[in-house]
Amino acid sequence: MDVKAYVEKLGLQAKQASRQLAALSTARKDAALERLAKLIREKEEFLVAENRKDLERTAEQGASAAFLDRLTLTKARINGMIEGVLQVAALPDPVGQVISGTTRPNGLRIQQVRVPIGVIGFIYESRPNVTVDAASLCLKAGNAVILRGGKEALNSNLALAGLIAEALAGESIDRFAVQMVEITDRETVKEMAQSDQLIDVIIPRGGEGLIRSIVENATVPVIKHYKGVCHVFVDEDADLDMAQQVCVNSKVQRPSVCNAMETMLVHEKVAETFLSKVASELDKENVEIRGDERTCAIIGNAKPASENDWSTEYLDLVLSVRVVDSLQDAIDHIAQYGSGHSDAIITRNIQHADEFVRNVDSSTVFVNTSTRFSDGFQFGMGAEIGISTDKLHARGPMGLSELTTYKWVVHGNGQLRR
Amino acid sequence: MDVKAYVEKLGLQAKQASRQLAALSTARKDAALERLAKLIREKEEFLVAENRKDLERTAEQGASAAFLDRLTLTKARINGMIEGVLQVAALPDPVGQVISGTTRPNGLRIQQVRVPIGVIGFIYESRPNVTVDAASLCLKAGNAVILRGGKEALNSNLALAGLIAEALAGESIDRFAVQMVEITDRETVKEMAQSDQLIDVIIPRGGEGLIRSIVENATVPVIKHYKGVCHVFVDEDADLDMAQQVCVNSKVQRPSVCNAMETMLVHEKVAETFLSKVASELDKENVEIRGDERTCAIIGNAKPASENDWSTEYLDLVLSVRVVDSLQDAIDHIAQYGSGHSDAIITRNIQHADEFVRNVDSSTVFVNTSTRFSDGFQFGMGAEIGISTDKLHARGPMGLSELTTYKWVVHGNGQLRR
Repeated sequence: MDVKAYVEKLGLQAKQASRQLAALSTARKDAALERLAKLIREKEEFLVAENRKDLERTAEQGASAAFLDRLTLTKARINGMIEGVLQVAALPDPVGQVISGTTRPNGLRIQQVRVPIGVIGFIYESRPNVTVDAASLCLKAGNAVILRGGKEALNSNLALAGLIAEALAGESIDRFAVQMVEITDRETVKEMAQSDQLIDVIIPRGGEGLIRSIVENATVPVIKHYKGVCHVFVDEDADLDMAQQVCVNSKVQRPSVCNAMETMLVHEKVAETFLSKVASELDKENVEIRGDERTCAIIGNAKPASENDWSTEYLDLVLSVRVVDSLQDAIDHIAQYGSGHSDAIITRNIQHADEFVRNVDSSTVFVNTSTRFSDGFQFGMGAEIGISTDKLHARGPMGLSELTTYKWVVHGNGQLRR
Repeated sequence: MDVKAYVEKLGLQAKQASRQLAALSTARKDAALERLAKLIREKEEFLVAENRKDLERTAEQGASAAFLDRLTLTKARINGMIEGVLQVAALPDPVGQVISGTTRPNGLRIQQVRVPIGVIGFIYESRPNVTVDAASLCLKAGNAVILRGGKEALNSNLALAGLIAEALAGESIDRFAVQMVEITDRETVKEMAQSDQLIDVIIPRGGEGLIRSIVENATVPVIKHYKGVCHVFVDEDADLDMAQQVCVNSKVQRPSVCNAMETMLVHEKVAETFLSKVASELDKENVEIRGDERTCAIIGNAKPASENDWSTEYLDLVLSVRVVDSLQDAIDHIAQYGSGHSDAIITRNIQHADEFVRNVDSSTVFVNTSTRFSDGFQFGMGAEIGISTDKLHARGPMGLSELTTYKWVVHGNGQLRR
């Protein structure tokens, strides 16, 4: 079967399934999720065996240790998946929530009611645990989902998709509610992104290159972030002890993720004191510093930053540092080089905090805390399907609500328009 | 100057202006709108004179009477514009509204705060009063806007843009907050739709052909509706008097707009009684009926409907009519042929109403009232920039709130992620 026809078949099946899902009770969706958790527990050894096939083939192809690590389904990760599914089952169902409502002077009762989006296309790389996360969230929000995982994880993903299908069947839910794309060449991604009659939104996770290639070809709306070039600005009125702790946490607590700090901006009035202080802490954590001229004059072992460094997402123990003359310069730097993801100010000055919050146009703006908190779980959403730096529909961490849209429901008793 | 460079210049100017606008107080935005209302009143004769140039040139080119009517700035329309601007000034400012907020167990205070989208590209046809509506709404919501109106209205639009610039200057607001595209060939539309680094969203108004051509070329997100193929379903349990009044109102109160009924579906149990009854009323209003076989058997002067009729937006005194066997058949018909705009059921039966509301996937679903109420003013939004049949960001009538996005603002006192 050619790729176009194959993707169209999946899309038609998903669209059909989405009609059942939209009207499905919370109890049945939750029961299916609980079944899935139970099945994953029962089929743990099968999953590990299928995953081993993926690992062996991928290792032979010379993948890096980090890549193989992400591909691996350990017992701990399987437990994590089960816990994740049960957490999603326990979350409130967003579908049916009344967002706003009013009664008009003519007696019309108008409600804005949350409903599922319809069909989600979810495109991701080779972490099989993401398969179950995404399927659970989409199902709970009443959406059909077409999952397109990385080719290296195909055996693991098909094994998981089999369990999901079994869980759906147990509650008489259309088996096409969750579908795994079995053809893993790049062409399927392109076809999905152009199926605007069948897929309502594409949510991609992965590297900037993958996501840009999807957006360029897409006629389906895409919700995404390209990268996280996150800043912490240490204001002239900062508590410098707090600033040091927050900067170190933002950089080193998990440097490989999108909400880690990549650039530290320091007000010139505190630069000498603060940079001398923080440099030794960062050095202990093996952080390489790339600084502007003034930074390099203060931190002896800093390398000079290139223009390119200011817009680079290192995802590693590397940090660019710039000394700025003012709060406005910090805001301007973030506007020019930032990615609109997560940016923080450390200050004791309310006016400076307010000005930073008002003028930094990022999905999350932090005052006196770590950028690492930019995360659906940390925000109390209970789960996260991704993070958006887009302006439309969803911005920042995306949970269940962000997987829904709304419809307007209007009740009358014969009102006519004059 | 070539078109690409020209649109880029407008985009850069708009983006720069949007930074000032995002932090602008409600008082200054409202003051600028009040100035604008005053200026339109003072320059009424100038506007009429500039509009006359457009009318004369367009009449020479052989435009239809209906087209010339839409292009005309009458005194009544100028009064309408002034009233519209003052209404927008009087509406609550959506910017700064806290949509949700929580304090996390670790003390982080998390708020989801409404902020402007940034730069809006608004593309429309030759109704110069729309220029002022769109500019007012975008300004009030804190957005910069690039207006691309129809070429026939260029003199009128430039005259209005001059008054808008004067009103902005009076409040020291960046004059690039509202810009009119002066090059009106098709190429500017295409360039705008591909300026994803500078324009955050495109809102097009106009015919299906124009909108499809924008969407096909766009890398900027587009919020739109293609057409309104709106249905009224007369259930077996309908109050037939109410059904008749609502159907006639939905069809004839203003047949040329997107929320007018285009297809009437009638349950077979009441078809004979209802269709005989409604046919004479529709006939009095000069409505041409195109029916399926059963309809034609009941209504003598009905023409047979073609397959194509079911998905046609007539925007005229033409109505397709089908007799259906069940509520489910009505839902299926709407799923297959509808445009997801506005659909109504007339019934006294709660269960039927609930089933229709749950299963019809349209931006607005009505029970026992006219589809003509699908409108921002009627919904109490105070104003309307357009209607969306999309699933993401905004669905149904779009007012000020739909011209905003949100950012997450997180206040801490040194919290670190563990």
